[in-house]
Amino acid sequence: MEVKTPTLLVDKGKCLQNIDRMIKKAKASNATLRPHFKTHFSAEIGDWFKKKGVNQCTVSSVDMAIYFADHGWDDITIAFPYNLLEADKVNKLAKRVNLNVLIESEESLMHLGKHVQEKVDYFIKIDVGTHRTGIDPRSEPLIEKLVNHSSEKHTFKGFLAHAGHTYGSTDYESVKWIHDMSVKVMEHLKEKFGGMLSYGDTPSCSLIEDLSAFDEIRPGNFVFYDWMQKNIGSCSVEEIAVCMACPVVAIHNERNEIVVYGGAVHLSKDVISEKDAYEKTKNCFGKMVYLKKDGWTTDIVGHVDRLSQEHGIIKLPENEIARVKLGDVIGILPVHSCLTAELQGHYLSTAGEKIEKMLKN
Amino acid sequence: MEVKTPTLLVDKGKCLQNIDRMIKKAKASNATLRPHFKTHFSAEIGDWFKKKGVNQCTVSSVDMAIYFADHGWDDITIAFPYNLLEADKVNKLAKRVNLNVLIESEESLMHLGKHVQEKVDYFIKIDVGTHRTGIDPRSEPLIEKLVNHSSEKHTFKGFLAHAGHTYGSTDYESVKWIHDMSVKVMEHLKEKFGGMLSYGDTPSCSLIEDLSAFDEIRPGNFVFYDWMQKNIGSCSVEEIAVCMACPVVAIHNERNEIVVYGGAVHLSKDVISEKDAYEKTKNCFGKMVYLKKDGWTTDIVGHVDRLSQEHGIIKLPENEIARVKLGDVIGILPVHSCLTAELQGHYLSTAGEKIEKMLKN
Repeated sequence: MEVKTPTLLVDKGKCLQNIDRMIKKAKASNATLRPHFKTHFSAEIGDWFKKKGVNQCTVSSVDMAIYFADHGWDDITIAFPYNLLEADKVNKLAKRVNLNVLIESEESLMHLGKHVQEKVDYFIKIDVGTHRTGIDPRSEPLIEKLVNHSSEKHTFKGFLAHAGHTYGSTDYESVKWIHDMSVKVMEHLKEKFGGMLSYGDTPSCSLIEDLSAFDEIRPGNFVFYDWMQKNIGSCSVEEIAVCMACPVVAIHNERNEIVVYGGAVHLSKDVISEKDAYEKTKNCFGKMVYLKKDGWTTDIVGHVDRLSQEHGIIKLPENEIARVKLGDVIGILPVHSCLTAELQGHYLSTAGEKIEKMLKN
Repeated sequence: MEVKTPTLLVDKGKCLQNIDRMIKKAKASNATLRPHFKTHFSAEIGDWFKKKGVNQCTVSSVDMAIYFADHGWDDITIAFPYNLLEADKVNKLAKRVNLNVLIESEESLMHLGKHVQEKVDYFIKIDVGTHRTGIDPRSEPLIEKLVNHSSEKHTFKGFLAHAGHTYGSTDYESVKWIHDMSVKVMEHLKEKFGGMLSYGDTPSCSLIEDLSAFDEIRPGNFVFYDWMQKNIGSCSVEEIAVCMACPVVAIHNERNEIVVYGGAVHLSKDVISEKDAYEKTKNCFGKMVYLKKDGWTTDIVGHVDRLSQEHGIIKLPENEIARVKLGDVIGILPVHSCLTAELQGHYLSTAGEKIEKMLKN
């Protein structure tokens, strides 16, 4: 593989292992796996799932649903609040695929009823504690109304939750606590109102062994993983399946820094706080590794300390900086692979093949 | 203009005023304006400059240089350390345009000499305090070597600095202090080694009245401005020329929040810290305004408190949240317009016309 500009490398072998592990977990829990495709945005990577028997997927926008429908996916959940302004697109798409949308208000359900003629099923979005979207599970009168609007054309399918607050966790116990609370809340709703239960997020689906409380799981990030997931405990460094290859363009021995071609427009500015050896908090925009013939090493050499638009500034120890030369290509394990992936025009497999993805228009 | 998905609106009238103001400033300072095009990425917006007599531009990558060369620009500075791995592309591009590159080590200048046959001029990049790239101005022996390598094919053009540390400023005094220090350092180098002086960054070029110490200025962000620049004091709210139009997809009265379709993949995760009314630090990923027929209002209604991949969560006062309905389209003034612009597939002018831009491949 020849890299001259920042390029996201994808290790297909690691992806397939990550997919296998999640399929196995779903089977053992007797839950359907409906993976979220907002991590990879790629028809080709979608096919890796399909070849393993996965036939349903989750997306985060109507445009992403159209992209995957165009590439043979015919059972799609748009896990984003139904956007009234895209009713026409939803209607058109529902003519050719089984489509599920998310509802969290009477108004949006009424709008769906009035403006979407095709069959579209709906999940009621429940807020299990993330406080981003969804209905407070205690608002049972509203939930009841939404369930009762179920019709042959727009059928109530069940309750859907995304426990995004697991991303604030750094250990199994807190992820487990969130899972157990979510199970309580959602099982109660199922018992009272019927329907199926759909649950998401990569930390829960990676860390919790038994997900049998749910009928369906929707993790997305696990296909690639990233440094944030490593920090939470969802994966090992070895399981991270993407790495940004970046040319070294400047070396500053006097401050133990190298500058790479690879900035905010390649990695995204998502960041995590870490403690250094002196317990001082530092920002980390990615972890440096070395590239090798068919991938990258998994020893962490340094961290991306600052990012500007096209520059990444990496801090690394003296003995390592001595190994780096101008024109070398080093690797960066991204903090948040979904956002990093979204920024790419394409990916490069570690076997040297171009992997196409969805682009903005 | 009809908006159904997140769309970056560009107010051409405001852009033209911002351009006019900078042209006037450059003229009064007897400096050439070589604007940085890494903010707008757009041939059409480049033409707005050209119609006003600007014939030179700055870019931050070889690919961006190729894009603007393809659109008629023939005098381009790549304000990013010369990437050894792109020597062939540089060579090819230099056949058809006047090209300047940045050098900060003997090794890269030797590489240029060996691998680039076409005429390419070079600036020596000086670190005036940002500590991102560039040579410490006290390293005169190294600077002397680099100057002395000047040849007919690869001519030493002068000293170039980017005072990126002005971005940490929130008042005129600290920007002025940085400017004055930079002037001292750079005038000394010019006196000793000759060549011209090129200076950048929007805060300096917006706030400092007299830039006559420099032969050339290279601000970029000023064409759009953004909330970060407003915070530094580089512009007024009225001068911000871009606004992200986002559909409202959920309303949470119980916590004075609305959720819009418009997330990290539309705005970027660049963030500033602000103090709320109780002096508590809060994150701000953008400021909410209302849209109107031909643009947006300039009263700030609320702020983007959190961003996930496709969701923006906006906090706003009770009286304002009562005005917002599902399916409304509201505006967000971005924190960092360069990164927001980079994320778009295209822009929409406030007159309703599509503005094309450079895309990743």
